[in-house]
Amino acid sequence: MKDYSSMKPQEIRTLIGEQQITGQTSGMAKGFTQANLVILKQEHALDFLLFCQRNQKSCPILDVTGPGSFRPSKLAKDADIRSELPSYRIYKDGVLTEEVHDITDYWEDDMVGFFLGCSFTFESPLLASGIPIRHIEENRNVPMYKTNITCTPAGIFKGPTVVSMRPMKAQDAIRAIQITTRFPDVHGAPIHLGDPSLIGIDDITAPDFGDAVTINEDEIPVFWACGVTPQAVAMESKPSIMITHSPGCMFISDKKDSELSIL
Amino acid sequence: MKDYSSMKPQEIRTLIGEQQITGQTSGMAKGFTQANLVILKQEHALDFLLFCQRNQKSCPILDVTGPGSFRPSKLAKDADIRSELPSYRIYKDGVLTEEVHDITDYWEDDMVGFFLGCSFTFESPLLASGIPIRHIEENRNVPMYKTNITCTPAGIFKGPTVVSMRPMKAQDAIRAIQITTRFPDVHGAPIHLGDPSLIGIDDITAPDFGDAVTINEDEIPVFWACGVTPQAVAMESKPSIMITHSPGCMFISDKKDSELSIL
Repeated sequence: MKDYSSMKPQEIRTLIGEQQITGQTSGMAKGFTQANLVILKQEHALDFLLFCQRNQKSCPILDVTGPGSFRPSKLAKDADIRSELPSYRIYKDGVLTEEVHDITDYWEDDMVGFFLGCSFTFESPLLASGIPIRHIEENRNVPMYKTNITCTPAGIFKGPTVVSMRPMKAQDAIRAIQITTRFPDVHGAPIHLGDPSLIGIDDITAPDFGDAVTINEDEIPVFWACGVTPQAVAMESKPSIMITHSPGCMFISDKKDSELSIL
Repeated sequence: MKDYSSMKPQEIRTLIGEQQITGQTSGMAKGFTQANLVILKQEHALDFLLFCQRNQKSCPILDVTGPGSFRPSKLAKDADIRSELPSYRIYKDGVLTEEVHDITDYWEDDMVGFFLGCSFTFESPLLASGIPIRHIEENRNVPMYKTNITCTPAGIFKGPTVVSMRPMKAQDAIRAIQITTRFPDVHGAPIHLGDPSLIGIDDITAPDFGDAVTINEDEIPVFWACGVTPQAVAMESKPSIMITHSPGCMFISDKKDSELSIL
């Protein structure tokens, strides 16, 4: 198996474009920012921009393509967002209808791509700080859950906040709060820790997206707002078509994680 | 009852010197830094300075008086530390022998006063941020506990880390970690949160110093390193004489809390 962690973003994107990588991207092109993707027709673009502005913890915007353009000028000007993510989900009228590796055939001239910050970005500094990350240790996708924390609506867009969860020892959780506070563009500090039921998660062993991970007895679950939120929102808001990355299968940009630290 | 919160530090210190105030100082002279006091004979001063340097989370030094001087030049140059704290504890050979309101009769020409940062300093910005503080709400002294976290020893000084505890909702705990991180000279970020038994606290309802407070079901206990640590250390290290403030009965300085924020 190739060491994807040390490869350059462009090299990984090329392999993805050739469908040699079709799964989750955690740990690839270490040090470079990965982003969530949401694609909508122009008629919904303003509402969705407003939605992101009103729900910045879950939907921090890193880049938006001009209508019809599939090149994210700020994140990776030469990339093609129609083929250079490993997996996409097609939602039609709020229903997940297909999961595909290339969306060139679905692309329309008035589509707009939104790139949202992803918690993978702050995992590098967490690891560098000696904080173990369970889903990486267990080689799984990060567990994600719908919560009872309602997003502030905008136009047709409304729905629950989705969170990603990492179990940690208390001391590591405190340090993780400090580190992730420095990264407001990739969800920033956690929005909850401890008792999952307080944010409407009934069964921590059954995530709505991603995979369950082990939580040890001396650990507490720590919850960050998650860029998968728009997918939960799509299901409720039912735009005629919405294309997203598949959970964990992110866009790998040319931007360095360290550029997103505010301190 | 007078409104001590809006009085100037010098006014409060005068009332204390006159023994019109003999109890805990939480909330007095709002906006001004309160400090823990440790007084030792010169023979132990170097060891104690080393001890503080090695255990900065519990013993962050704000000021040290020259041998024989009872005026803290950095914190309040006109104050007299022999009478301007509400209550003192005298430890002889590691045993608490007296609790007094004035130590002028105990003062010796080679004594050195150490002022350590106090968590009261970060309570103002916590309150300003809308985070309720239980022991203030319940008009009690903050609960403090000996832990199984051992201080790094220096010379004769060794012993357990003492922590102060504030119960909070998870969201407030996260915000409190951010805020207190800005105040490294007054214990900084918490050192633990959640399960008290993980740091050797068997009964959260029975603090070793201060008073127990209510912990609601949707709250977690958050623990900060505490300037009462030297008192627990005194009991183990047994210097011939050591004088400290009584828990919660702090020195009120002329320095503003806001000056201690690093951001």
